Amino acid sequence: MVSLLQEKCVACRAEAPRVTEEEMAELLPELPHWQVVEREGMFQLERTLQFKNFASALDFAHRVGRVAEAEGHHPLLMVDTLCATDPPPPAWGKCTVVWWTRKIRGLHRNDFIMAAKTDRLYEEAGAQAARGISWGMR
Amino acid sequence: MVSLLQEKCVACRAEAPRVTEEEMAELLPELPHWQVVEREGMFQLERTLQFKNFASALDFAHRVGRVAEAEGHHPLLMVDTLCATDPPPPAWGKCTVVWWTRKIRGLHRNDFIMAAKTDRLYEEAGAQAARGISWGMR
Repeated sequence: MVSLLQEKCVACRAEAPRVTEEEMAELLPELPHWQVVEREGMFQLERTLQFKNFASALDFAHRVGRVAEAEGHHPLLMVDTLCATDPPPPAWGKCTVVWWTRKIRGLHRNDFIMAAKTDRLYEEAGAQAARGISWGMR
Repeated sequence: MVSLLQEKCVACRAEAPRVTEEEMAELLPELPHWQVVEREGMFQLERTLQFKNFASALDFAHRVGRVAEAEGHHPLLMVDTLCATDPPPPAWGKCTVVWWTRKIRGLHRNDFIMAAKTDRLYEEAGAQAARGISWGMR
C-alpha cells in the first residue's frame, strides 16, 4: 500500500513521465472520492467538496492554496454556492479541486500526492467544525 | 448614466424580473471588461482577471467573497495558474468571476452591481501592488 500523504511533490519537467495505467490502478484506491476526468485530451483528478456555506468553501480553497504554494504545485479551484431549493440542501457551498500537471499535459504522481493532501485538509475542516472552531470567512 | 457602484443588492425572489435587453444595453457600457455568456440556457456575466501569481489570484477571490458575503449574493469563482511557456506570460495567476442569479436562472440588476464592485476591487489590487503593499498569500 502506498502512502501518498508522506510524499512531497518533486520538481516536474516537461519530459517527466505521466503516471501509467498500472500506477493509476495502484494509486486510485487511496483516493476513493476522486474522479479521473479527461479534458482537452488531458487526464485530471477532480473532487467536489461540500461546505455549510460559500464562505467556508472559499476558506477551504484558501487552505488548499497555501499547501499548493508550499509544494510549488497548483490546482484549479472553483468555489460556488448551491441554489435555493425546497427543501434546502444539506450544504450551501462547494469547492471543486482539480489537479493535473500542465507541463506534461496529464497526471504526474505529484497530482495524486496533492489530492491526498486535499483530502486531509477536508478531514481537518470537518474535525474543526465538529469542535465548534469557526471555519468561516476571515 | 447609471452608477452601479453606488447601488446595493436587493433581496431577490424567484419571481423577480430578469434584466431586459434594453436595460442590458444601458448597463454593459459600465462594464467593458465583462462578457455576457450563455450556459445551460442562463445568461451570465464573466470576467477573467490576471495576477502576478496563483496566490494573488486566490487572495483576490477571497476579497470578492467577502464583498459577496456582505451583499448576500455569491458568484462562481475560479482560480487557476497559467502554464509555463517560452517566453513566460506576464501574469501567472488568474481568477475568473461569474455573476448570475440562480433563483431567476439569469441576470438580475444585482449581478451588474456586483460586477462593478469586482472591477473596483481589481483596481484597488493594482493600486496596492503599485504602492508595494503585499498582495500575496496570507
